[in-house]
Amino acid sequence: MTPASELSPSPGALAPPRGDKSQAIGTYALRLGDDALVLAQRMGEWVASAPQLEEDVALANIGLDLLGQARSLLTYAGTQLPHPDGSPRTEDDLAYLRDERDWTNVQLVELADDGDFGACIARLLVFSTWQHELYAALTSSTDDTLAAVAAKAVKEVAYHRDHATQWVLRLGDGTDESHRRMQDALDTRWPHVDELFETDDLVRELDAGVAVDPATLREPVLAYVTAVIEQATLDVPEPAVRHTGGRRGVHTEQFGYLLAEMQRLARSHVGATW
Amino acid sequence: MTPASELSPSPGALAPPRGDKSQAIGTYALRLGDDALVLAQRMGEWVASAPQLEEDVALANIGLDLLGQARSLLTYAGTQLPHPDGSPRTEDDLAYLRDERDWTNVQLVELADDGDFGACIARLLVFSTWQHELYAALTSSTDDTLAAVAAKAVKEVAYHRDHATQWVLRLGDGTDESHRRMQDALDTRWPHVDELFETDDLVRELDAGVAVDPATLREPVLAYVTAVIEQATLDVPEPAVRHTGGRRGVHTEQFGYLLAEMQRLARSHVGATW
Repeated sequence: MTPASELSPSPGALAPPRGDKSQAIGTYALRLGDDALVLAQRMGEWVASAPQLEEDVALANIGLDLLGQARSLLTYAGTQLPHPDGSPRTEDDLAYLRDERDWTNVQLVELADDGDFGACIARLLVFSTWQHELYAALTSSTDDTLAAVAAKAVKEVAYHRDHATQWVLRLGDGTDESHRRMQDALDTRWPHVDELFETDDLVRELDAGVAVDPATLREPVLAYVTAVIEQATLDVPEPAVRHTGGRRGVHTEQFGYLLAEMQRLARSHVGATW
Repeated sequence: MTPASELSPSPGALAPPRGDKSQAIGTYALRLGDDALVLAQRMGEWVASAPQLEEDVALANIGLDLLGQARSLLTYAGTQLPHPDGSPRTEDDLAYLRDERDWTNVQLVELADDGDFGACIARLLVFSTWQHELYAALTSSTDDTLAAVAAKAVKEVAYHRDHATQWVLRLGDGTDESHRRMQDALDTRWPHVDELFETDDLVRELDAGVAVDPATLREPVLAYVTAVIEQATLDVPEPAVRHTGGRRGVHTEQFGYLLAEMQRLARSHVGATW
């Protein structure tokens, strides 16, 4: 974790770590919520811009599922990471009033698609497979709220994973051009895959049975993803570089633009009735 | 209707009017579908950019409802406006392969919000009220398909109208600033309201009982909208200028950008498997 002293203060900045259990659980819930919220925004960018109207509907529904997961997780995080006066942070405090360095999503979800449908699908394949393994394990969490959120979400992301799988097979095992473009898309995303499986102090600090150690997800996630990629006659990329840092607030330039767009309205009217 | 000779040819260009009944019904369904599809895209732009996460979900759901209406209407239009070889045009042919001059939506739905939430809500209030009156009347259409689409859609737009109503009341009767901004938003949208109520040759050409004459919607729509605006302590604008032309393919500059974004992917791979 980045020491709190390194984070620039912002109206939504979190209190310095208190080292207690609720702080750790809140931070953990926040991570998962940040992942879901940021990807929801990226999926939303596809509404009415996908290659088919049917696909517009599918991508928008996936975005809505992620938005629902984000709301549950951020609301829970806000109860565990209250304001200095003890009142809970709301989901909107956390979504709209945190500065970039306070966001803890993995970088994979923040990357812009720039209209590349293959890139959208390549990310969705890896991330939804990861979420599926994560939520499946988290249904057994000793934290009742996390277990309940996971029980609902695991069904949603099973559909996301199936959807991405069908597209990777169709594009990879399609025309020469769709094959080439799907491979390019995988290659572009892969330097950001490893970050999904990193363990850190926060996970170690949490009581056994509360959180899921990301390292345990590597094998089942890569097994599924590899099987799909190979069936699609594509190659699993072996990236020469690996990016990391999202969990401690280090983000890509693309994330700055996303955050500005997302927060502009709320920040221009802090405390307003809308 | 603009003579077909004035339209630039495009892969999705429609055949010259044949003057028969199915041509007219198809053109009518296409109008309503274009309205819904274009507004769906504008609503989608708000995913994760609204002032509250709860509102993100609401606006995204409204966009999805509109996308569903658009798909039904465009699919039906495509069966009535077949390719020269007699095969039906698909919803995707109509969505992605028509040039700007072949789009028949009213201009109100194409206007950019540019991040102005009040403008989004002002349009939604008028347009959803109009759609609600339209679809309610269309449930009695002698055309079974239009009647069936309307029966489903009327329930959806009733919710959209209620949602917009609540926001106009909240913002209009809120702070001085929210009141001023909501009034500005209404003023911006109002020059495009009159177009919703225009009758033209197409509607006159259709058999009585098939379509709804937009002129008959003026009184009930304005009655509802006026009541909401006055309850919100706002004024119904009296615009000095009125824009029209959408139904015959005349659109704003903003629409060109929307269409480019929407069609870019499909047009760069015409006939591709995705």
